[in-house]
Amino acid sequence: MSKYWSSMVKRTEPYVPGEQVEQLDIVKLNTNENPYPPSPKVKDAISVEMERSLQLYPSPTADELRQTIGNIYGLTADEVFVGNGSDEVLAFSFMAFFEPGKVIRFPSVSYSFYPVYSKLFAITYEEVALNDDFTLRVGEYFQSEGGVILPNPNAPTSLYAKLDSIELIVKNNPDQVVIIDEAYIDFASESAVKLIQKYDNLLVIQTTSKSRSLAGLRVGYAMGNRSLIEALVRIKDSFNSYTLDRLALAGAKAAFEDEVYFKESTGKIIATREKTMGILKGLGFNVLPSQANFVFVTHATVAAETLYLQLKEEGILVRHFNKPFIENYLRITIGTEEQMARLVEKLKKLV
Amino acid sequence: MSKYWSSMVKRTEPYVPGEQVEQLDIVKLNTNENPYPPSPKVKDAISVEMERSLQLYPSPTADELRQTIGNIYGLTADEVFVGNGSDEVLAFSFMAFFEPGKVIRFPSVSYSFYPVYSKLFAITYEEVALNDDFTLRVGEYFQSEGGVILPNPNAPTSLYAKLDSIELIVKNNPDQVVIIDEAYIDFASESAVKLIQKYDNLLVIQTTSKSRSLAGLRVGYAMGNRSLIEALVRIKDSFNSYTLDRLALAGAKAAFEDEVYFKESTGKIIATREKTMGILKGLGFNVLPSQANFVFVTHATVAAETLYLQLKEEGILVRHFNKPFIENYLRITIGTEEQMARLVEKLKKLV
Repeated sequence: MSKYWSSMVKRTEPYVPGEQVEQLDIVKLNTNENPYPPSPKVKDAISVEMERSLQLYPSPTADELRQTIGNIYGLTADEVFVGNGSDEVLAFSFMAFFEPGKVIRFPSVSYSFYPVYSKLFAITYEEVALNDDFTLRVGEYFQSEGGVILPNPNAPTSLYAKLDSIELIVKNNPDQVVIIDEAYIDFASESAVKLIQKYDNLLVIQTTSKSRSLAGLRVGYAMGNRSLIEALVRIKDSFNSYTLDRLALAGAKAAFEDEVYFKESTGKIIATREKTMGILKGLGFNVLPSQANFVFVTHATVAAETLYLQLKEEGILVRHFNKPFIENYLRITIGTEEQMARLVEKLKKLV
Repeated sequence: MSKYWSSMVKRTEPYVPGEQVEQLDIVKLNTNENPYPPSPKVKDAISVEMERSLQLYPSPTADELRQTIGNIYGLTADEVFVGNGSDEVLAFSFMAFFEPGKVIRFPSVSYSFYPVYSKLFAITYEEVALNDDFTLRVGEYFQSEGGVILPNPNAPTSLYAKLDSIELIVKNNPDQVVIIDEAYIDFASESAVKLIQKYDNLLVIQTTSKSRSLAGLRVGYAMGNRSLIEALVRIKDSFNSYTLDRLALAGAKAAFEDEVYFKESTGKIIATREKTMGILKGLGFNVLPSQANFVFVTHATVAAETLYLQLKEEGILVRHFNKPFIENYLRITIGTEEQMARLVEKLKKLV
């Protein structure tokens, strides 16, 4: 600590992302990335853009990308906000919709960045317990004082809450914003996007990092009533005029335009997930019914931390959270068929 | 305004960037971009990186880029912070070093984003008047309550304050952070970087958007004592783990590695600036002695706003600020020799 640090720095408890390794021989199943490359059209678009004007600022309003996303979800461009990864969109949302002194609610087992944002922006929060099977206690999110944020599917549990549960939470917070963080929705069933026209307090956040294979490009987005989007734009324009660079704008647009590739690659991951879940159950794992691109598992006899460390030694990275309720669980990203076969082969020896 | 907006949104007064146009026939001299493309090595590096792993997150710590920048300025990697454009680095710096309730100081004619950040983060500020010739009143920055931020060269005035003036300000704020925003320093003389080892309260912020022709890629950086850098890292890791995408990291690194190209293109701009200043003086302009990649001018008889509008009609964009003290000035970016010839040709008809 230094005398030059602001009170804001002093109260931070920074997020620790999963390990990033560049060794090619590692099987990396720890940060929920897509094992498949993005659509070939992404590279084409980036190559074209690169030949244009890297020396000129990108569009500060990102209208083309917002329109492209709007077209897919049946929204207008002013119902869409884009940012530097969904983490930035989440940070701006905490700034735009949550208020110091008004308690917000999120699940006790959830994306561990929510308490980090809360501390940064001095937002008080209440962690709502999950049921023993990790499902949401829907009624406990009603009538919140300061708003609600929750991931659906939830991370790291992988569980999806049906849309009628989400709608109940939105409906029962008429004076507060409810943020549904849908980073993994493309591996699940229905998105809450269809509720946007009905509820002006609903913000849905998604990302290109998972289902569109663009974690390396940093493009996230929010969808909601235009007055919510206007609030995000005001925050962004008070923070950084140009949050998305030219190549990210072009690459993300191309990814959204290739629906065929998107459906094919998400389909493959879902198929591998279902197969892997069956195999892991056969090896004595309790596997939560995942609707994400990862599974959340615990073994009947071998401790999660032991498995995490032994897998790491064998060149396979999975994620272990040293936290209450989930310290005996592993979060394993769904990779390619080959990667999952290597994982299963190692696990057979370890359990 | 909406009932869902936080008090933070309500108090924002967003920055309005210069117009971005994509028409190729426009002579764009309004946002201080570099008229030359980046080093060819930038494209090579981006092409290589694009073939690697866009589906994987980038390095959250950006160590390689920080090391590359450190090597150039004689600093270690932990004395360098990188971010999504210098605007993001500035925003993080306001969060990390300035405190609500403690008045900061910056020049009354300066980068118009400073009051925007101040409003966003509820930082009280005092605008210190410039002398009539737009030079800094150095002594008036001493013993500030909450810190000092100033651009050197200043924008939009283009004036450079000598390093001994900067040092006096840093020295006379021993308990506060002094931020020197050196977006344009590569078109001027000495950087304050050389004072970093001597003063642990000095933060120097630079960007690749101007001298390294990468406005479209969004890479800015800060240099200072490692405890200041640690504060910025804590803020960033509480906000967005991965602020720089893979292509931006690779492209910026390549730009820093091509010193020959960098010196050549900044040299060309400086030469064109000197020539343009002479010609504009000949046309009856008062031209401030610029050490930036733009000039700040006022005409003896024709109003700046009139000139701005007439130039725009002729397909030439320059920047006019409708603000006290400078409403009769134009800020004109130094373009290529050809662009400046077109500007001069039009001006000859208008003045």
